[in-house]
Amino acid sequence: MKAITVKQPGGAEQLQIEEFAKPDPRDGELLIKVKAAAVNRTDILNRETSKGYLNNPILGVEVAGIVEEVGAGVEIEVGTHIMGLVNGGGYAEYVVMPAERAMVIPENLSFEEAASIPEVFLTAYQTLFWIGHLHADENVLVHAGGSGVGTAAIQLAKQIGQANVITTAGSKEKLDFCRSLGADVEINYKEQNFDEEVLNATENQGVDLILDFIGASYWSKNLESIKVDGRWVLIGILGGANLENVNLMELMSKRIQLTGTLLTPRSDEYKAALTAEFSAKTLDLFGNNTLRPVVDQVFAFNQIQQAHEHMENNKNIGKIILKVG
Amino acid sequence: MKAITVKQPGGAEQLQIEEFAKPDPRDGELLIKVKAAAVNRTDILNRETSKGYLNNPILGVEVAGIVEEVGAGVEIEVGTHIMGLVNGGGYAEYVVMPAERAMVIPENLSFEEAASIPEVFLTAYQTLFWIGHLHADENVLVHAGGSGVGTAAIQLAKQIGQANVITTAGSKEKLDFCRSLGADVEINYKEQNFDEEVLNATENQGVDLILDFIGASYWSKNLESIKVDGRWVLIGILGGANLENVNLMELMSKRIQLTGTLLTPRSDEYKAALTAEFSAKTLDLFGNNTLRPVVDQVFAFNQIQQAHEHMENNKNIGKIILKVG
Repeated sequence: MKAITVKQPGGAEQLQIEEFAKPDPRDGELLIKVKAAAVNRTDILNRETSKGYLNNPILGVEVAGIVEEVGAGVEIEVGTHIMGLVNGGGYAEYVVMPAERAMVIPENLSFEEAASIPEVFLTAYQTLFWIGHLHADENVLVHAGGSGVGTAAIQLAKQIGQANVITTAGSKEKLDFCRSLGADVEINYKEQNFDEEVLNATENQGVDLILDFIGASYWSKNLESIKVDGRWVLIGILGGANLENVNLMELMSKRIQLTGTLLTPRSDEYKAALTAEFSAKTLDLFGNNTLRPVVDQVFAFNQIQQAHEHMENNKNIGKIILKVG
Repeated sequence: MKAITVKQPGGAEQLQIEEFAKPDPRDGELLIKVKAAAVNRTDILNRETSKGYLNNPILGVEVAGIVEEVGAGVEIEVGTHIMGLVNGGGYAEYVVMPAERAMVIPENLSFEEAASIPEVFLTAYQTLFWIGHLHADENVLVHAGGSGVGTAAIQLAKQIGQANVITTAGSKEKLDFCRSLGADVEINYKEQNFDEEVLNATENQGVDLILDFIGASYWSKNLESIKVDGRWVLIGILGGANLENVNLMELMSKRIQLTGTLLTPRSDEYKAALTAEFSAKTLDLFGNNTLRPVVDQVFAFNQIQQAHEHMENNKNIGKIILKVG
């Protein structure tokens, strides 16, 4: 089978297509004929710093496809259309997946749409509800509203959380799209001071919850934007990781709960439990178009270099998809 | 009545005894004839930066004494011996207290012992259980084990939390005392690298929970000492508030939950709920000496300057008490 690996740690030009043996599903695993895989920032990090993910030399952490073969103890039928997270190996014609990560694709969705769901919607679900404990009628600030996780978080916070959603993005096009997904307040961070706008929108109270994919460059404004006793979930560092000046008293006097998190390195058990709860709460809503996967652009398998470059340019609204089968 | 106020923001020499009218209890309040009050760091901060606490020019946030008079709707009887938090005004012969903060003093305790309970034991209870979610058999790191909150936290983590308690202090005398309170592992931070000792004591996993009264000077070692998915509660900045170099990726890759908190500024409702739960869980244990208030030294009312200086010298093990009535 054809699969995408990294020659040497570096830029998109290091990506290559290689020939591999089709993997065998072990007990509790599925072999999937991959129809579409999605591109994630973790793939770019793995491309730049190592070769592949975990011990898998093949990139890619989420796919949509057709069950080709099942290992012992698996009750999913061959031929089922499924989507889900994999432990690397997603950029390939075939990949194995633990059966408890598999989600049945609602019939109204294409494989490209389905491949755009698992990583961003599971991350958004985990951070909004498991870590962020979002309640109805609370105010949540979703940064990078046009990003993959941002577009998922806006929808989940609105449709499942019944919250008031404030979002930031850098263009009118992105902000209009965020509104179409359900955002209540849209802030152009290039033209406005988002902390002032957040305070205006919350009667000077600030938000109950921040979903922060930005990190260092937004630190001070996030501190201004958060309510006393607010929760702040740090899930990305698009604006840098290094802070030169932190006053811990500010965290104490506002009684802030700051939680750092990453989904990809978590245990199989965690991902299985998250997948189960997420599926129960959302698959019907995808099925009736209340929740919408957001596909920015679909690239052919041999256009993987362009697909990575497109993500690195930060021009996308929603997910970048690799069409495989 | 006599009460202690601040002439001008500054050192202990600014403390003075003044004559005030006895306060009147409003609906839902008690008037207490104060027998003992405790000295807290918040009193020193208020002495240095302002005059009194909230709108109360009289210092002091916790007392033990005898109910002298009750406002409408209060069911506690005149003459009851009670201890609890007050909204300032504790360094005085009489003070008012919301009735729902009043805890009946177990008969085996003196007023001086009782006055040493509310602030530190409620803070330790809140941070260990409400914020830190400590579970049985988890490892908890309690810094400043000889401090007021430290001595309370060691006992509560052990007796109520059934946890494994690791503590740090700066002298053999303090560490021996911590052991007598139930600590399992004692680390002299002046002679040992506490992070290395914590990893040795936890099979290189780190602790599930850190109670941090230190802040900036322990930041890096706390990061080393905490387990993946660990909780870190920041409740003091004895080692400074300002960090010059924070790498947010470290919070994300260890998936740390860092929560800043302060007890004193919280709402009446919060303190009432905390007092109710704490009383139900602990008063019997104080009554049978399973939990022990820790009194370092008792000062006479007119020795308040020496009492503040004693706290500022960091020599105390446990609480510094002002004998009032």
